[in-house]
Amino acid sequence: MTQNKTASLLIIGNEILSGKTADKNLNHIALKLAAIGIDFVEVRVVRDVTTEIIEALNQLRTKHDYVFTTGGIGPTHDDITMDAVAKAFGVELVIDDGAKDSLKNYYKAKGQELNPARLRMAQFPVGAELIKNSITAAPGCKIGNVFVLAGIPAIMHVMLEEALPYLTKGSQVISASVNCNLSEGEFAMQLDEIQKSHTTTEIGSYPYLHEGKYAASLVVRSIDKAAVDSAIAKIKAMIAELGGKEL
Amino acid sequence: MTQNKTASLLIIGNEILSGKTADKNLNHIALKLAAIGIDFVEVRVVRDVTTEIIEALNQLRTKHDYVFTTGGIGPTHDDITMDAVAKAFGVELVIDDGAKDSLKNYYKAKGQELNPARLRMAQFPVGAELIKNSITAAPGCKIGNVFVLAGIPAIMHVMLEEALPYLTKGSQVISASVNCNLSEGEFAMQLDEIQKSHTTTEIGSYPYLHEGKYAASLVVRSIDKAAVDSAIAKIKAMIAELGGKEL
Repeated sequence: MTQNKTASLLIIGNEILSGKTADKNLNHIALKLAAIGIDFVEVRVVRDVTTEIIEALNQLRTKHDYVFTTGGIGPTHDDITMDAVAKAFGVELVIDDGAKDSLKNYYKAKGQELNPARLRMAQFPVGAELIKNSITAAPGCKIGNVFVLAGIPAIMHVMLEEALPYLTKGSQVISASVNCNLSEGEFAMQLDEIQKSHTTTEIGSYPYLHEGKYAASLVVRSIDKAAVDSAIAKIKAMIAELGGKEL
Repeated sequence: MTQNKTASLLIIGNEILSGKTADKNLNHIALKLAAIGIDFVEVRVVRDVTTEIIEALNQLRTKHDYVFTTGGIGPTHDDITMDAVAKAFGVELVIDDGAKDSLKNYYKAKGQELNPARLRMAQFPVGAELIKNSITAAPGCKIGNVFVLAGIPAIMHVMLEEALPYLTKGSQVISASVNCNLSEGEFAMQLDEIQKSHTTTEIGSYPYLHEGKYAASLVVRSIDKAAVDSAIAKIKAMIAELGGKEL
């Protein structure tokens, strides 16, 4: 639909797959990328298993312009992301002296020490650039087209802001929507015609329950604002013709 | 970690990737599978693009014992899941007469007709068994090891309940957790020792912010309850030794 760069996300975390934690990062990343014209096209969630992380990462970084990873970059034994990323790229992990000093100062200010576990957070794959973390000093990194970010949402947010300037912005996809009290089956054929006559747009229909009855959210997306406006006008006329109401 | 069957999830939906909708199905499926001893090991989210659905589905159904798909089984032009599933299996889509009759009766009761768009919801890949939908009469299906479910959470829930009896239950993973006011770096080395001395358990450490300071949730999972109890006891002792408090 666009010539925009593509991006994908690899969520690393047993806690998501066990159901203990509901992921909150996917939606945030989706909205941030949409706002700067990058097409977010695939997400994977894998376990904290080195071979699984490597396999998924190597597939995603080949298929897409950018890959973000979240999770697994802390100091505990189950934080294996940096090691897996290094292995995926076939490079070693090395201590970054700048990151080590920052962590030392961060812990010193808290009256704590940079013990061996914490020192692991100063290790990065050879060739990586650091992604600043203004909250806890433990950085993420960029290696090739891969951005390795924290899993804790607040920290992921600040790291993502540091990562965004590296990305090539594209044509922002303009989105408009109309909700109505019709069920999809009432308008599906007419909507199909509108889609066919608006080929530069992508029209999505998302059913939901409203006061116990079917309703639908009709979303038009395109980089061409005039095409979005035209399709939305046709959709509004269609809803009226079918005796429906906008919600 | 177990001899349990493995399962994966393929979320089909531009609305998730655009950020319009936050997925609510992953966590529900994760908890339901955990409760019956099936290891939920991978999730993918792809766009409403037939080739992308086919590629992901064929990878997942080869790698894992079960695959669930959510989304894209309604009557509108962007509902392409059944077609993509049929193509992935190399079979045709055919009208199921039972499903057609159920849909006809469902719409008749509402004073509506089974128009061509709605009739698409009675089409299934050759060889599929239907998965009942007690809410709107439009079924999902099972073909091979793939369960094709709706995307609307309420409907996905009732379909998943219909799908669960097909699955081979395994050893339920027992999970216990302790939250504490220590940061991961304070206990990482000691926790690593506990993990090494409890090889039949999987110990996860999940940091979070509590009253503006780092805290962590330590989770022990295993099919061996005695091993979980032992690891939890060691973790509680560790927290006390380090001067931490349980939260």
